[in-house]
Amino acid sequence: MDTPRVAVVPPSPLIEEAVRAAGVVLAADVAEADAIVWIDPSDPVSLRDVLAKSPATWVQLPFAGIEEFLAAGVIDPARTWTCAKGTYGPTVAEHSLGLLLMAARLLHRHARSKSWMRHGDFASARRLEGSTVLLVGTGGIGSALAEMLAPLGPRVIGVNRSGKPLAGAERTVPVTELEAVVGDADFVVLSAALTSETEHLIDAKMIALMRPNAWIVNVGRGKLIDTDALIEALRDKRIGGAALDVTDPEPLPDHHPLWTIEDVVITSHAANTWEMAVPDLADRVRRNVEHFARGEPLEGLVNVGLGY
Amino acid sequence: MDTPRVAVVPPSPLIEEAVRAAGVVLAADVAEADAIVWIDPSDPVSLRDVLAKSPATWVQLPFAGIEEFLAAGVIDPARTWTCAKGTYGPTVAEHSLGLLLMAARLLHRHARSKSWMRHGDFASARRLEGSTVLLVGTGGIGSALAEMLAPLGPRVIGVNRSGKPLAGAERTVPVTELEAVVGDADFVVLSAALTSETEHLIDAKMIALMRPNAWIVNVGRGKLIDTDALIEALRDKRIGGAALDVTDPEPLPDHHPLWTIEDVVITSHAANTWEMAVPDLADRVRRNVEHFARGEPLEGLVNVGLGY
Repeated sequence: MDTPRVAVVPPSPLIEEAVRAAGVVLAADVAEADAIVWIDPSDPVSLRDVLAKSPATWVQLPFAGIEEFLAAGVIDPARTWTCAKGTYGPTVAEHSLGLLLMAARLLHRHARSKSWMRHGDFASARRLEGSTVLLVGTGGIGSALAEMLAPLGPRVIGVNRSGKPLAGAERTVPVTELEAVVGDADFVVLSAALTSETEHLIDAKMIALMRPNAWIVNVGRGKLIDTDALIEALRDKRIGGAALDVTDPEPLPDHHPLWTIEDVVITSHAANTWEMAVPDLADRVRRNVEHFARGEPLEGLVNVGLGY
Repeated sequence: MDTPRVAVVPPSPLIEEAVRAAGVVLAADVAEADAIVWIDPSDPVSLRDVLAKSPATWVQLPFAGIEEFLAAGVIDPARTWTCAKGTYGPTVAEHSLGLLLMAARLLHRHARSKSWMRHGDFASARRLEGSTVLLVGTGGIGSALAEMLAPLGPRVIGVNRSGKPLAGAERTVPVTELEAVVGDADFVVLSAALTSETEHLIDAKMIALMRPNAWIVNVGRGKLIDTDALIEALRDKRIGGAALDVTDPEPLPDHHPLWTIEDVVITSHAANTWEMAVPDLADRVRRNVEHFARGEPLEGLVNVGLGY
């Protein structure tokens, strides 16, 4: 093909630089663009308006999760769609590791304390070494987290759609067998994509199978958990606690019960801030624009059937 | 030698079990003990009274730091002294990693928040990947932490007495050259032993050389830092913050200024709780009692001249 024209919408200097670095023409007008790099993660309606005016055959989305775009019906099969899945794995995994250590060491209790804590107030603190960590989701986040956990010495169990082995895990089971392993876990980390199969994966029944001191860490999507069931279990102290980067609803409103439970930490969707994401997204955009110009397969192809 | 008699003082079932597992006689009376395993980390005066009645030629101390015992003049050169140095490295390193991730990701701000945080309130959050971490102290803690940091991708610089290379560090410098490297660090982790050389190693002059967003993580001893200088720098926002498992004074009194500064987290000497320590100490005691019975070199020999 001729040198393709690629539009970045809304404009973003760093992403535009990545497009230029790939050796293509930066298109000022979407009506003349062969491809669109869409930067706004939360405005599928505007994207629909843009697409109505554009002949673009490929659309790059900025984050890994695409359920808002799917729900808005923007993702038409007439074009090729890519998202940033896999790009931010190490960034979110790093945040997850921070939440795991906070949970194990009860660092949130220390952070909130305004006086020297008595040993009895953190005697239930524990090491990750020798604990069991269940990684529900073994994509970019789960696999990076398994690598980060290796020198810390927990036993890692992977859970994914197919049961395909996760490197670094003692074993990996398909999500249909989650009930059989959830009771082994001291920590359950959710990084799975949100689909009709995974919505409310952690419900009252699943929580009832968990250890009484187990923590849930959610860096995937809020709706992976039945929030009402979680609150009930936390209030009854039937599980240890929850560290949530994502919630349902999100943002979590003021005075929501989750704000009032001691062993709950909420990090306001901060695992991958825009400042952290931009360099990784720029790299992915540059590579994908190069692939597009050469007619090569693109990274992060959306599988509309699977929903991610 | 005949089967040695080893006393555990004060009594501790798990440590006594370790002594028995080493195949020696558990002595009920220190007056008949060839060796003493001293369990109380904070009562050197009682140990002096016990030693006055005992012919023990070897004394095992329970923690890595021994400055209270040295200050009390208990450590007489007529006996062999061992401490637990090296034993708890991975445990304390794990806590340190939690504090590093808390500092990088500003998790303390999230943990304290009672409502969904606006992005602007954590836009300065960053990744450990690509940052520079200075490990001041490369013993059991520093070397375990270097291993744990490897998959997270920061640049690691080691600092120790001799400049002997730390595995996993890009380079290692002697502590006499700390001033030359402290300005490279995003995070400075202190795990050095407290000696006359390291007391107030982090003073006003050293802090003035640090980056304005650098954090200090102290898991060594409180007196490694000049607390007044630290408070002044934190108040003037000349450094990013401090995560302190140890303080000077310790315990830190109520209403101390350190409790009032936003980017300070204090974890009340919790990096190695008694519950976490006992299994590791039991292992070390068992091995050392076996060595003692066979006349082999002991692990964790105290160097009275160096003070650790």
